[in-house]
Amino acid sequence: MASSSSLHLSQALLARAVYLHGSSSDRVSLSFPSFSGLKSHSPCKAATFSAGSRRRGASTSVVRATAVETLDQTTEVSLVEKSVNTIRFLSIDAVEKANSGHPGLPMGCAPMGHILYDEIMRYNPKNPTWFNRDRFILSAGHGCMLQYALLHLAGYDSVQEEDLKNFRQWESRTPGHPENFETLGVEVTTGPLGQGIANAVGLALAEKHLAARFNKPDNEIVDHYTYVILGDGCQMEGISNEASSLAGHWGLGKLIAFYDDNHISIDGDTEIAFTENVDQRFEALGWHVIWVKNGNTGYDEIRAAIKEAKAVKDKPTLIKVTTTIGYGSPNKANSYSVHGSALGSKEVDATRKNLGWPYEPFHVPEDVKKHWSRHVPEGSKLEAEWNAKFAEYEKKYSEEAAELKAIFTGELPAGWEKALPTYTPESPADATRNLSQQNLNALVKVLPGLLGGSADLASSNMTLLKSYGDFQKGTPEERNVRFGVREHGMGAICNGIALHSPGFIPYCATFFVFTDYMRAAIRISALSESGVIYVMTHDSIGLGEDGPTHQPIEHLASFRAMPNILMLRPADGNETAGSYKVAVLNRKRPSILALSRQKLAQLPGTSIEGVEKGGYTISDNSSGNKPDVILIGTGSELEIAAAAADDLRKEGKAVRVVSFVSWELFDEQSDEYKESVLPASVTARVSIEAGSTFGWGKIVGSKGKAIGIDRFGASAPAGKIYKEFGLTKEAIIAAAKELS
Amino acid sequence: MASSSSLHLSQALLARAVYLHGSSSDRVSLSFPSFSGLKSHSPCKAATFSAGSRRRGASTSVVRATAVETLDQTTEVSLVEKSVNTIRFLSIDAVEKANSGHPGLPMGCAPMGHILYDEIMRYNPKNPTWFNRDRFILSAGHGCMLQYALLHLAGYDSVQEEDLKNFRQWESRTPGHPENFETLGVEVTTGPLGQGIANAVGLALAEKHLAARFNKPDNEIVDHYTYVILGDGCQMEGISNEASSLAGHWGLGKLIAFYDDNHISIDGDTEIAFTENVDQRFEALGWHVIWVKNGNTGYDEIRAAIKEAKAVKDKPTLIKVTTTIGYGSPNKANSYSVHGSALGSKEVDATRKNLGWPYEPFHVPEDVKKHWSRHVPEGSKLEAEWNAKFAEYEKKYSEEAAELKAIFTGELPAGWEKALPTYTPESPADATRNLSQQNLNALVKVLPGLLGGSADLASSNMTLLKSYGDFQKGTPEERNVRFGVREHGMGAICNGIALHSPGFIPYCATFFVFTDYMRAAIRISALSESGVIYVMTHDSIGLGEDGPTHQPIEHLASFRAMPNILMLRPADGNETAGSYKVAVLNRKRPSILALSRQKLAQLPGTSIEGVEKGGYTISDNSSGNKPDVILIGTGSELEIAAAAADDLRKEGKAVRVVSFVSWELFDEQSDEYKESVLPASVTARVSIEAGSTFGWGKIVGSKGKAIGIDRFGASAPAGKIYKEFGLTKEAIIAAAKELS
Repeated sequence: MASSSSLHLSQALLARAVYLHGSSSDRVSLSFPSFSGLKSHSPCKAATFSAGSRRRGASTSVVRATAVETLDQTTEVSLVEKSVNTIRFLSIDAVEKANSGHPGLPMGCAPMGHILYDEIMRYNPKNPTWFNRDRFILSAGHGCMLQYALLHLAGYDSVQEEDLKNFRQWESRTPGHPENFETLGVEVTTGPLGQGIANAVGLALAEKHLAARFNKPDNEIVDHYTYVILGDGCQMEGISNEASSLAGHWGLGKLIAFYDDNHISIDGDTEIAFTENVDQRFEALGWHVIWVKNGNTGYDEIRAAIKEAKAVKDKPTLIKVTTTIGYGSPNKANSYSVHGSALGSKEVDATRKNLGWPYEPFHVPEDVKKHWSRHVPEGSKLEAEWNAKFAEYEKKYSEEAAELKAIFTGELPAGWEKALPTYTPESPADATRNLSQQNLNALVKVLPGLLGGSADLASSNMTLLKSYGDFQKGTPEERNVRFGVREHGMGAICNGIALHSPGFIPYCATFFVFTDYMRAAIRISALSESGVIYVMTHDSIGLGEDGPTHQPIEHLASFRAMPNILMLRPADGNETAGSYKVAVLNRKRPSILALSRQKLAQLPGTSIEGVEKGGYTISDNSSGNKPDVILIGTGSELEIAAAAADDLRKEGKAVRVVSFVSWELFDEQSDEYKESVLPASVTARVSIEAGSTFGWGKIVGSKGKAIGIDRFGASAPAGKIYKEFGLTKEAIIAAAKELS
Repeated sequence: MASSSSLHLSQALLARAVYLHGSSSDRVSLSFPSFSGLKSHSPCKAATFSAGSRRRGASTSVVRATAVETLDQTTEVSLVEKSVNTIRFLSIDAVEKANSGHPGLPMGCAPMGHILYDEIMRYNPKNPTWFNRDRFILSAGHGCMLQYALLHLAGYDSVQEEDLKNFRQWESRTPGHPENFETLGVEVTTGPLGQGIANAVGLALAEKHLAARFNKPDNEIVDHYTYVILGDGCQMEGISNEASSLAGHWGLGKLIAFYDDNHISIDGDTEIAFTENVDQRFEALGWHVIWVKNGNTGYDEIRAAIKEAKAVKDKPTLIKVTTTIGYGSPNKANSYSVHGSALGSKEVDATRKNLGWPYEPFHVPEDVKKHWSRHVPEGSKLEAEWNAKFAEYEKKYSEEAAELKAIFTGELPAGWEKALPTYTPESPADATRNLSQQNLNALVKVLPGLLGGSADLASSNMTLLKSYGDFQKGTPEERNVRFGVREHGMGAICNGIALHSPGFIPYCATFFVFTDYMRAAIRISALSESGVIYVMTHDSIGLGEDGPTHQPIEHLASFRAMPNILMLRPADGNETAGSYKVAVLNRKRPSILALSRQKLAQLPGTSIEGVEKGGYTISDNSSGNKPDVILIGTGSELEIAAAAADDLRKEGKAVRVVSFVSWELFDEQSDEYKESVLPASVTARVSIEAGSTFGWGKIVGSKGKAIGIDRFGASAPAGKIYKEFGLTKEAIIAAAKELS
């Protein structure tokens, strides 16, 4: 209980500062050898800076700088530098041609990029989706030309010279930020800051989970690293702290993150808004931290840091790499002006001169090309070796092999959907959040890639898989993930899991209103075609007393407006099962399930098949497709609509009740089907939904009426709020009578 | 440049552990004296716990525990404990009566709550909005009964006994989470975790800014503290790291946060998801950190910590207070079961027995009542003294006094709106983001409470106030706030600024798409009636090459669906000025301005007055309110609609062009006015907007056509995307001809 000190840490981690020239003075002069045949011997202007201006980490950090060791080297330093400059100039030239983009990061990060793709990472350029590849994530996605240049050099078909020249152009494979759905070799979609590092935590979680579940003492069939480059911007975002805290908690030893510490963000020097001690924060989060002081030319420092990071197996590692943004540009390096604009032809010329680069734009020198050309045969060999290893594995461990194969191929087991529970009107009334849990627990038995959890609301969201334990540092083979109160990190981690292998089906959960905390990650799910299942409970004022801070109003509308996402609001057991069926089948489109806290009746007429159509008739006493009135409801309000219909029918009305569980799926049906559910001639339409009426105008038409909530909620028992807000059978009946 | 160590820190901060009984053993037994007349002498069961289970902070932290000093004490310990137990039982009883709520936090935090409201804070219960009051924020808002109990004891009219009995009921002043718009004495709206601590950073920023701007050597007219209680949940949220990093950067010395370290969250022990070293993280963020090891009964420890925190003037302080959640409940304390549910009558009885509480529910013992009764006269005196001080100030510094008064009364200077720039069709074409900057720079000259900034995009969002410097630790009197890449924290900090004083008009900025990062804070602006101005640039595919990660699609719709917020999308200079006029006037409703990156023409017919109506005709060649077709546009697409109208008119059509800059404002107009703009008889309507068509169905009607974008964007030059996506004059003309 006595307060401890960090004496032991401080003692153990005495820094051994290493400079290119062995200097230990306060000023560091970085220079580089000139290439043969070039005149310039002057040290690069941009690389001279005052160490005094780099205050972060210098005052109280206990982080040591990397020790340079004599590493096995197969490549001459001059060739490495030539390769690094190739990366720099491909980036400079592409941004220049597009007159748009971010040259600064690729120029500063080219050394670490080169070392990763040329010396460290295991991948197969001709099969970018080879399962056991190392993953690389550029969390600072604006620097995407770095990655495109590397993919190009490594021999990926997705980035040819033509693609580099089409950077940021219509239908190019080299968009303005890395997009996995456009460019093979790009793992996830980044650009919105902080998402990438959180995706990487998901990828590393996936690897750790699969390794624990499938590796055998004689056959470690799952074994790869996840590398990330993130910048100051990523570090400032809350999401990166959330995800990094979890990475430390889980001890993701094969996650290695390079922090491009260049001290510049768009608004200028990071001193104006970012003076925290990042090293110390990451130590607090349980990471191993290494500082590479010379990221511009300290190749051996970078190599040594990676070696050290790999040796630390129980913690993720942050390698802080101090670089100069726009390294090599004599007049713009180390300033915000090189961050997000083309250098301009004059400065491009000056940079060519400064770095001794006599080549035409987009030229890759022959020796560099030749050097990189080994990656195609080597990658092919790596995959072949792994395939042989898997064949061995399959022979010996056939059951596990089948499961693992399902995960890396994405093929769903035949007949999986038979596991979905079914319900009858006689089944007990229940909250759809509870019905959701029945589905999850049924599905986990047949879907080897299903895993997930909640942001500290497992017992409210009802997301625990009862036959599994917790995914934790010591039990990574388990499938209940405990995200803590970190919604944003949770969503982005699930994106990483989903994009690790096509058979992963991650789900995550919180209260529906708190999708606001994770909306940026959900949007990336939709954009990057990550089939995450969002289990969102407490989906309306029906949650009652917690009040307006916890009651979603505009959320259904806000997701219905989002492209490539399914917003599902099931009304009972069959519709919840149908929603899960749809969610599992849509592997390239995320699904959000809005689920009730309160008990709901099992309704006659609901069905899994109905849900698959998005909108369908659950009851109807009309004939000839001409009801007097159509009542439309979703989720918890469908039973109110059904009750109103019963009463109206007793009074002789011909009433159709339509469940509108997913607008997107309904939109995709044929015109004929749509007309059979909502005939154009029937303008007497009443909708009811405990949420904003925004968007309902299109469904009920200008002569119809949308009953909903266009204000914030209230703190009171749920029944009282429903009544006060007019979400009642009586209100529907009154509206129906007025219209028909 | 040499790597440093924390040796000096470790040496300086040797912990002095202090226990109630002077014990230094590994087990800590906490007991408390029984009250006279009560039998129980047994130590409270719940307060015995193994210190070993409290691992966080124990292993590597350099944080010292508080030193207990002999403080001036005016209150007997027994009376303090009685008061603390009053707070506990008011909370227990209210949750029990409502059968809903969170008793655990109030029971654990009652001691710090008591000390804050009874001994430390300066406030006037009869004028909860007294300008110079200390602010208190319960960031862990679910524990709101703590605050209601304290407000009740302190004599606030807003929380009477009746209100406590109506906890969480319809129209009560004691909703399920603290809501500033329901309960006087509650400063902000909390519940969604992490918001409160970020609000508190905003409140402390406001104080520091005003103090620097207005205080004189002979008259420190602005001088208050901001206190916060936050829990493990708040700590896990990324927003709290963002805001806390800024608080450290800004050196907000009068911000004092109590971290209720109770080791329990909803899903159980925080060990399952939250094992980071919080102390060390806050040190890394530049905070002073103190550990109160016995928050349950260590009153002197708490007092000493506050004294120490006040003495540290250049850093915010985090006081980690280790407490037992549900302290006093013999069977439920220190478990998640006491977090979010009523104790149940049996356990309430057991807790009464355990804590020696013989009273009826909701009873406040006479001596406790008497003790607290001094706060009404004392508060009145505090305010009167301050009023006298302000009168002095006004005499001597009349100009400053007038400005300060405008800030604390919220009265806008007469004729302020004359500062708004005006434009003619001959004014140069310009991006609305640039026009926005002209407005901001004009307004800052007449609005003393205007201040704000961007999340590291000032030069893209065009938000710099040219006549001011940066608000920084050393220059807090300035008005450009540099938020770094921390959108979520930025929004919540602005909510805090807005709610500090009614005359503050904070604005903040990022790319429109990144509202996704801060949506939870924006929603709280809307709910809590904080008139923040959100300056959101790069509002469509018109931003071009950055691609779909940066191009908003569904965002306009998503905010139009949100209650109590104005979504404004001006088309040119006059509409930008009009949007600012509306935004400034709406002090209880936030405004979002969606602004273009690209240049837009100044259009004939636009006006400030038009914007105030939300939708209005900018040109029309029809008569008798019977145009052949109505073209409706917003923002950058209004000029496309206007150009299409020109062409159609040349072909003899009667065409009306309507700007639909704010749907909410249009909705508020009279039916007559609405009919004059969109006559029901004219069903030939074409809308154009570079965003989702979701919601437009209601405006264009079932016979109209909405031109928009119902997919994600693309990376390419803006003009190319507009053309490929069909957002063209030609598309409008074709649609108009088809319909009319």
